Amino acid sequence: MVKVNENFLKLPGSYLFSEVARRIGAYTAAHPEADIIKLSIGDVTLPLVPAVIQAMHAAVDEMGTAGGFHGYGPEQGYEFLREAIAQGDYAARGVDIRPGEIFVSDGAKSDCGNIGDIFGVNNVVAVCDPVYPVYVDTNAMAGRAGEYQEELGRWNRLVYMPCVEKNGFSPEPPEETPDIIYLCSPNNPTGAVLTKDQLKVWVDYANASGAVILYDSAYEAFITSEDVPHTIFEIEGARTCAIEFRSFSKTAGFTGNRCAYTVVPMELERGGVKLNSLWNRRQCTKFNGVPYVVQRGAAAVYTPEGRAQIMENIDYYRRNAQVIREGLAAAGLTCFGGVDAPYIWLRTPDGVGSWDFFDQVLDRANVATTPGAGFGPSGEGYVRLTAFGEAEATRTAVERVAGMFR
Amino acid sequence: MVKVNENFLKLPGSYLFSEVARRIGAYTAAHPEADIIKLSIGDVTLPLVPAVIQAMHAAVDEMGTAGGFHGYGPEQGYEFLREAIAQGDYAARGVDIRPGEIFVSDGAKSDCGNIGDIFGVNNVVAVCDPVYPVYVDTNAMAGRAGEYQEELGRWNRLVYMPCVEKNGFSPEPPEETPDIIYLCSPNNPTGAVLTKDQLKVWVDYANASGAVILYDSAYEAFITSEDVPHTIFEIEGARTCAIEFRSFSKTAGFTGNRCAYTVVPMELERGGVKLNSLWNRRQCTKFNGVPYVVQRGAAAVYTPEGRAQIMENIDYYRRNAQVIREGLAAAGLTCFGGVDAPYIWLRTPDGVGSWDFFDQVLDRANVATTPGAGFGPSGEGYVRLTAFGEAEATRTAVERVAGMFR
Repeated sequence: MVKVNENFLKLPGSYLFSEVARRIGAYTAAHPEADIIKLSIGDVTLPLVPAVIQAMHAAVDEMGTAGGFHGYGPEQGYEFLREAIAQGDYAARGVDIRPGEIFVSDGAKSDCGNIGDIFGVNNVVAVCDPVYPVYVDTNAMAGRAGEYQEELGRWNRLVYMPCVEKNGFSPEPPEETPDIIYLCSPNNPTGAVLTKDQLKVWVDYANASGAVILYDSAYEAFITSEDVPHTIFEIEGARTCAIEFRSFSKTAGFTGNRCAYTVVPMELERGGVKLNSLWNRRQCTKFNGVPYVVQRGAAAVYTPEGRAQIMENIDYYRRNAQVIREGLAAAGLTCFGGVDAPYIWLRTPDGVGSWDFFDQVLDRANVATTPGAGFGPSGEGYVRLTAFGEAEATRTAVERVAGMFR
Repeated sequence: MVKVNENFLKLPGSYLFSEVARRIGAYTAAHPEADIIKLSIGDVTLPLVPAVIQAMHAAVDEMGTAGGFHGYGPEQGYEFLREAIAQGDYAARGVDIRPGEIFVSDGAKSDCGNIGDIFGVNNVVAVCDPVYPVYVDTNAMAGRAGEYQEELGRWNRLVYMPCVEKNGFSPEPPEETPDIIYLCSPNNPTGAVLTKDQLKVWVDYANASGAVILYDSAYEAFITSEDVPHTIFEIEGARTCAIEFRSFSKTAGFTGNRCAYTVVPMELERGGVKLNSLWNRRQCTKFNGVPYVVQRGAAAVYTPEGRAQIMENIDYYRRNAQVIREGLAAAGLTCFGGVDAPYIWLRTPDGVGSWDFFDQVLDRANVATTPGAGFGPSGEGYVRLTAFGEAEATRTAVERVAGMFR
């Protein structure tokens, strides 16, 4: 008789975004006239830029000809893309990452989950609280999280690093030394960032203890502050303790195009084993590469036209973030994030619970948010707003929410 | 200190296709004038058909407009594709599979590996011998294969089902009852198929024991024989014991386009748990869907034009298979498969070892094959040839190999 993976059965039932969607659906059913604006889900709205579209059309044409057809590609990604990434995202910032350290994939979500394959089950995992649920759920599925404690909203084997106002939403090295540390900067959901000095502390900590940092920088394109690193490999020592996840999703609007990459430096070894080799073996065995057409689209992001076009889109979203931040602050609300990140972390007024505040804002302003409690216990008392909406709708949403407090 | 997944370290070093590539490379370096024809790797060579190209162009155009842009899609695949699959691949054959039972993915290789996530580590896994290496390696990585016995070329916890001439290359239910059974029909590498009667035996066996059959039918499009089922769900009882993997790779030349799907019937439960729900949770947590453009391309395969065009390509490869089979038989060699499958399983003459035969054929005929021993101990004494080459080159390759024996 087959035994199912019992760890799956420990996962709490409702996924945050499903519950948000369910509540919006229920509200819309009861109020069909309501014009709901969603500042809740982190999906982009601007179309793919012309340089990407052009490159994809050209690649589709190739795929229809005997001479230009591409079958199985390298599992790690085509050299043209790995080279473009190495140059455009690293060498251009003075960081030396070789193409052989870059693994192109179908998404940072996949990679953040799949990376667990190369680690033993008996590692202690540390996550920020609040946190992007994928880090937690994938480790729970793999058996690294222990048991879920419903009443606390926590897993008993995970180490939680509270990110709260007191510490500027910046995680601090925990007392119990973890083996695997997930860091996300710019942060989802808080919009906070780690400065070079803050990240240096983590790199030194990991090198001293033998831990590995899984560094999710999917929102890197939104960084504007000088002292915020665009990659963990700007920090001395990171090559011996860090794996970095990057994505074209938010950088170039690829959420429906699926392309990302993971960097595993050659120097990163544990127990005498190169993690680059393990990840390579994992990818070669359980993955067959990203569509040729998509990789051509991703490579176009690194051309001068592509770069200029995607930066226009990023600027558009940045202006939305500013509108949200400033509009809500002017109404007397307290916001965090939204400067180097597309996320604004709004403190609910008068200590209202985050699901209650979600319901109030949905009902009174017809604006959907994401309750902070859904990201972990320390997210209680906050909601997440995103800057990925349409500019006019975002402005309207902010006015409506602000109107609740005038 | 991070502990790596020790199971990775047990994997034997060289992957079959890498070793084949290495030997071809070494030969080419020594004989730069040699015109090597590769009947070794199972990649398609014909370009994508016009209906698919057209659909992809249209989808790329959509992605470049505000109104047509598609961001995150459903993790399980778009309804338009799941519906087309349900109709085209199942209802059209009188088989009732609902869209909710279909999960669109980036490849059967990914799915065959990732499916392990939903099963406990302590299941006994049975595989055919010879076998597609991915089933074995992914289970080894997950800790289900035990220890690798170098001298036997086997893992000590896997159950091997020899597929040899004596049993017509058809696996027989093993003495030790396994929990998970991988079946592949049409088979890679032997080109053998399971008839309805043969498959019924397996379905009954699995239902009686509570095992789950993981049925890989990536080569379904090549079936011509009346008594060979196109899907395991043609067999009564399969809905309570089987998961089916299908792919657009060989059906529609999508090896570089990456689209496949997995069917998990609603009735399939073990220990009171629906496997459909577990796989859904796995995919929602660790996967973010297939590119919109690719899904539109896949859906075009089900249009009348698309269907006609891909069948022309399949016919082209079928003719190659016939050329190989008949040409080698005429030279006095013994071949199997190649009727309902793109693979021909050639017995090496005079009991020559399969790697030796590989070297001989490479040297004397400048034709690359895949040594059967690379697929498992029972593959020794055979090589695999594929029908995916260019027609003229295939004909030339067959003449050259046949010439070795005249």
